[in-house]
Amino acid sequence: MDIDQLKGIVRDIPDFPKPGILFKDITPLVKDPDALRFIVGYGLKLFSEQNITAVAGIEARGFIFGSLIAWELGVSFIPLRKPGKLPYKIREISYATEYSTASLEIHEDALSSKDNVLLVDDLLATGGSAKAACDLIEQLGATIVACFFVVELDFLNGKEILKEYPVHSLLHY
Amino acid sequence: MDIDQLKGIVRDIPDFPKPGILFKDITPLVKDPDALRFIVGYGLKLFSEQNITAVAGIEARGFIFGSLIAWELGVSFIPLRKPGKLPYKIREISYATEYSTASLEIHEDALSSKDNVLLVDDLLATGGSAKAACDLIEQLGATIVACFFVVELDFLNGKEILKEYPVHSLLHY
Repeated sequence: MDIDQLKGIVRDIPDFPKPGILFKDITPLVKDPDALRFIVGYGLKLFSEQNITAVAGIEARGFIFGSLIAWELGVSFIPLRKPGKLPYKIREISYATEYSTASLEIHEDALSSKDNVLLVDDLLATGGSAKAACDLIEQLGATIVACFFVVELDFLNGKEILKEYPVHSLLHY
Repeated sequence: MDIDQLKGIVRDIPDFPKPGILFKDITPLVKDPDALRFIVGYGLKLFSEQNITAVAGIEARGFIFGSLIAWELGVSFIPLRKPGKLPYKIREISYATEYSTASLEIHEDALSSKDNVLLVDDLLATGGSAKAACDLIEQLGATIVACFFVVELDFLNGKEILKEYPVHSLLHY
């Protein structure tokens, strides 16, 4: 398994979720245990020596990759969720998406100033959701160690909005 | 870590998402690496000798536990998603929930008649979403080996609607 093989497993879906958008379908990557092992292993190589105490994953595909990296690092997994899903006391933030606007929430006791956090999601597009996630994490006093994405759409320049953090993406388009 | 300790980590949230509902918040379980290790380890003991070829997880919390069990078994992870999220050709099914109605979708090439599937979700309540998930999986020709839940609300008798399948839950309320 290498990067080109992984790219061959990602499926292009034209006009999803809206006309003109070429969607990168990552479900074939999680269906393929070798592909998933490569992706998680790549993350572990980057982050296993960084004193990470928690991995935060963005709902819903970020839960898959984020929980696996948290599991392998032996640290907390913290879900960042869409509005109305987290049942306890929350912090909320709104942000602009590639298509419209949205919000993310985090439990206010999910992290503290002692935490060094790796943010994980499947996709870096415009970076709106990732920046919102980082803001929420920092609101709780925690430190962002890095952001990790499986796929990055370079032409949308999401790295710019995340420029204060180390950003690592595996597959670039 | 034992069952009673795990139950002590689950957080009761009164009146969520509706008045009169006592919600079982599992986010403290995924924040605690020892708790998560116990949960996943329990699943592995049950299912590692069952020739499972794929683990299907129900959006969104089922993605966390399902992907970890798939990872440890070294098999495919298949996401069952809410409407409009899966970009490729889908099968869809509607079902009654504890609170209203909902739908689940699966990619039609996610599974085949060669697959032996473990269904994973965080919660067995009335069993509507799990039964819908099993129906979708069987529509693709695959076999359900078992259903695994972290929490089961025994008083809602979700096992009845799933009586054709082996059902295993870790924490009973």
